[in-house]
Amino acid sequence: METFFSLLEKRADDCSSLLCVGLDPHLDELPTPSPAAALTFCLNLIQQTAPYAAAFKPNAAFFEIFGAEGWTALKRVVEAVGEESSRLGSRIPVVLDAKRGDISSTAEAYAQSAFEELGADCVTLSPYLGKDSIDPFLSYKEKGVFLLCKTSNKGSGDLQDVALADGDLLYERVAKLAETWNEKNNVGLVVGATHPEAMKRVRVAAPNLWFLAPGVGAQGGELQAALRAGLRKDGKGLLLPMSRSIARAENPRKAAAQIRDEILRIKGEL
Amino acid sequence: METFFSLLEKRADDCSSLLCVGLDPHLDELPTPSPAAALTFCLNLIQQTAPYAAAFKPNAAFFEIFGAEGWTALKRVVEAVGEESSRLGSRIPVVLDAKRGDISSTAEAYAQSAFEELGADCVTLSPYLGKDSIDPFLSYKEKGVFLLCKTSNKGSGDLQDVALADGDLLYERVAKLAETWNEKNNVGLVVGATHPEAMKRVRVAAPNLWFLAPGVGAQGGELQAALRAGLRKDGKGLLLPMSRSIARAENPRKAAAQIRDEILRIKGEL
Repeated sequence: METFFSLLEKRADDCSSLLCVGLDPHLDELPTPSPAAALTFCLNLIQQTAPYAAAFKPNAAFFEIFGAEGWTALKRVVEAVGEESSRLGSRIPVVLDAKRGDISSTAEAYAQSAFEELGADCVTLSPYLGKDSIDPFLSYKEKGVFLLCKTSNKGSGDLQDVALADGDLLYERVAKLAETWNEKNNVGLVVGATHPEAMKRVRVAAPNLWFLAPGVGAQGGELQAALRAGLRKDGKGLLLPMSRSIARAENPRKAAAQIRDEILRIKGEL
Repeated sequence: METFFSLLEKRADDCSSLLCVGLDPHLDELPTPSPAAALTFCLNLIQQTAPYAAAFKPNAAFFEIFGAEGWTALKRVVEAVGEESSRLGSRIPVVLDAKRGDISSTAEAYAQSAFEELGADCVTLSPYLGKDSIDPFLSYKEKGVFLLCKTSNKGSGDLQDVALADGDLLYERVAKLAETWNEKNNVGLVVGATHPEAMKRVRVAAPNLWFLAPGVGAQGGELQAALRAGLRKDGKGLLLPMSRSIARAENPRKAAAQIRDEILRIKGEL
């Protein structure tokens, strides 16, 4: 059966890329602060970068800021990825970056919203509420989740780096739990590329999982260090989301192609 | 200056209540699965229970399930609480139960969505990403946040009960951090009423903070145990959200009045 991660691996092979294009219509990026401008921003990015994108990742926050009209735009963005996939003859998965996390009956509603109403293939979730808050998402066997493990921000250490009585750091515990929760090949981890030492530890704790590794580029993470720390032994397992470094380039298509090629080059060296 | 918690305390005094009416238009509660039915469900609950409600708490998930139309309904729900407040001559705050949590520029967008676009007075957040993910919300000085600490679900222990090297449990660390983050009187904690022993420990770790304590009623938490464990010394500091036990009552107005009175009675005994 096709799972989200088998779909992602097929797409990564089809385009020889581990690049995930972030669709973050931050107000600073828009000529006018409107849902129409947010949609145009995203459609343009999709159209330009699709040949090099292993996945697209819209962040819900930048649509919610526009209320109901933002949600209409977000749904249209997911559809547009599907249309671009048809044109290319290779399905590009959509990771909805929403970082949800609630108790079970509420989690069911969030899962239905992300997977059925919006049509996303995967969603980012917080692990803080435990396994039963993740289960409603995992019950969609063809969909996937990325659980927050070690995030890319400076404050991530406040909780995630806390030392546990058994010697692990909290984010290592999350990684180990995620490995045990991955019974159906539908669990991955968010591991910031800004912390390559932490990423190494997470790779030891979760040798088989896909990482979504934000932070390369605008947030200062380095591509080579991330690939060295995070790639699985099969040369996959690492999805690198980039937003501003592509959207702000003079030619986003060229920027995406260059990043794809740079990843390939570094992978060849490792 | 008025803060969310001073507003909440005034409202709790005005209606002699610590009851927070949950506005959870779960599909099971609706005659038809539509945003119009969700809105009617909420407007009816607001109208019936407002005299006894210290706050209202819509959960975003049950609106997001309807996409853009759900967001329109959610915004209308927040407005309706404002209208009912005007009728009563006492402002009833709205806690948006959204459990968001993202890095700073994204958190800014979520804060703008919750506080400006939707007009909520307070929002629930995950602490997992650390202080810098909370700051954009705290910069709204007249608004408030409740940080997830010890949640009401069975799986909450997977991470929240993990023993730390310094002897604390993880949720106690969250409570202590929240006390230090509460420089502007705008931070509270989510502490499930289903775990009264944990609530006692959180009260020790965070003697001054308001708790949002779900789980009484439908989830099996007991009112008396929650009040005993969670009330502050001033007889406040505990907001008790209830949803199904009111919405499913034959007469929700009477059910809300009875719960308000029961809380008063138990408080009198303690």
